[in-house]
Amino acid sequence: MLLEYEGTRYCGFQIQKGVPTIQGELEKAITRATGEAARVHGAGRTDAGVHARGQVAAFDTESRLAPDRLIRALNFYLPADVVVRSARSVRAGFDPRRDALSREYRYTILNREVPSPLLGRWSYFVPGQLNIELMIQAARILVGTHDFASFTSSEGAARTTVRTILEAGVKRKGSLVVFDVSANAFLHQQVRRTVGCLIAVGRGETGIDEMRELVVSARVGIANRTVPPQGLCLMKVNYPDMGFGE
Amino acid sequence: MLLEYEGTRYCGFQIQKGVPTIQGELEKAITRATGEAARVHGAGRTDAGVHARGQVAAFDTESRLAPDRLIRALNFYLPADVVVRSARSVRAGFDPRRDALSREYRYTILNREVPSPLLGRWSYFVPGQLNIELMIQAARILVGTHDFASFTSSEGAARTTVRTILEAGVKRKGSLVVFDVSANAFLHQQVRRTVGCLIAVGRGETGIDEMRELVVSARVGIANRTVPPQGLCLMKVNYPDMGFGE
Repeated sequence: MLLEYEGTRYCGFQIQKGVPTIQGELEKAITRATGEAARVHGAGRTDAGVHARGQVAAFDTESRLAPDRLIRALNFYLPADVVVRSARSVRAGFDPRRDALSREYRYTILNREVPSPLLGRWSYFVPGQLNIELMIQAARILVGTHDFASFTSSEGAARTTVRTILEAGVKRKGSLVVFDVSANAFLHQQVRRTVGCLIAVGRGETGIDEMRELVVSARVGIANRTVPPQGLCLMKVNYPDMGFGE
Repeated sequence: MLLEYEGTRYCGFQIQKGVPTIQGELEKAITRATGEAARVHGAGRTDAGVHARGQVAAFDTESRLAPDRLIRALNFYLPADVVVRSARSVRAGFDPRRDALSREYRYTILNREVPSPLLGRWSYFVPGQLNIELMIQAARILVGTHDFASFTSSEGAARTTVRTILEAGVKRKGSLVVFDVSANAFLHQQVRRTVGCLIAVGRGETGIDEMRELVVSARVGIANRTVPPQGLCLMKVNYPDMGFGE
């Protein structure tokens, strides 16, 4: 399934008892649509409040409903802030997380003097001057295979903190400043900690050299200006042999 | 004041007893900020559920607060879904409605097979094929000075139903289809009734000739496929000698 959701009222993707989660809503909807107990596996565990335009998730079913009928049934049972955009049968054993080649995230900053009622649900309000040229330079430093330990928390406890960033770019679109980044995989909070640094660079509080130092030194958690979740959106997950996407 | 608001939870701009309105929120905030009773005059009375990125409104005050301090005070007292983007002093007697040269509205259609949790608050979901080329042709028919009686309700009771449409265009941006229109002024429900026709044209239910006939015949209310308010946004109001805008 290719999924879109507004994460505002959810405690993240991963199921937890007693709180609303995307996985929980999906499993409930599948059970209603198919009559079967269901376990959903997602490509990435988006945090509380994080949105998705292109999350990918899979589940096993004995149902013989054709994918397009299943989509309609799931969307009928899902709440309005979670939608199955498309669905297809995959080979047995397909794992949306392990089989993914790369992920693309976008972080949206609203950079003007007053907040926006229309854009506030999926952007982070940052008033004041931002030097976009410096932010673009800083983003370039991230590209490549590096130990990104500085950009995660000790709790994440990943076996390795080495990741490969394929692309990282900053651009201004009117009053929005958008950070697009793709990587083979991301550490917990990596994008939000990275954006915190980029904003500090844009404000002139952190130099390009300090940004480079954070990448080189790789000391767990030292990039600790974590920006809030509502600006973050999982845009796309790429697989070797699938045309999933917008 | 240049205003942005999400109209979702309001019964329109114009103040009414016992229900939330944009004007009501503004007058309350002005009273809190200045200690004075206030009467706000808007450029246009947006309907219930309609949004604005560039509504203009004015009020008289004895307050000596500089405009930028007044903006901060008003935004402090206003709910999060209404924001004063900028403000300036104007000549006594300035009337945002009468002094406006033209208004620009945008109507946003989401044209894909499933609704969107992220875009649903400010778009109207229309699944199925839409022929954009035909919609562009139909929109062109509207441009000029015509009697638009077909595109309003009898309740509107405007003295004349002649209006001048300056520009009208349809374009596709991914899964969004956007209708931008500017006119000296609009009749009640004119944009939403027009969009209802354009969608019918895009679906092949109404021909270009029928669209032309609606403009020529000018019989009150016959264009009665009114689309819902959440797709509509007042983008800008233009004045002879002011630089108000984004």
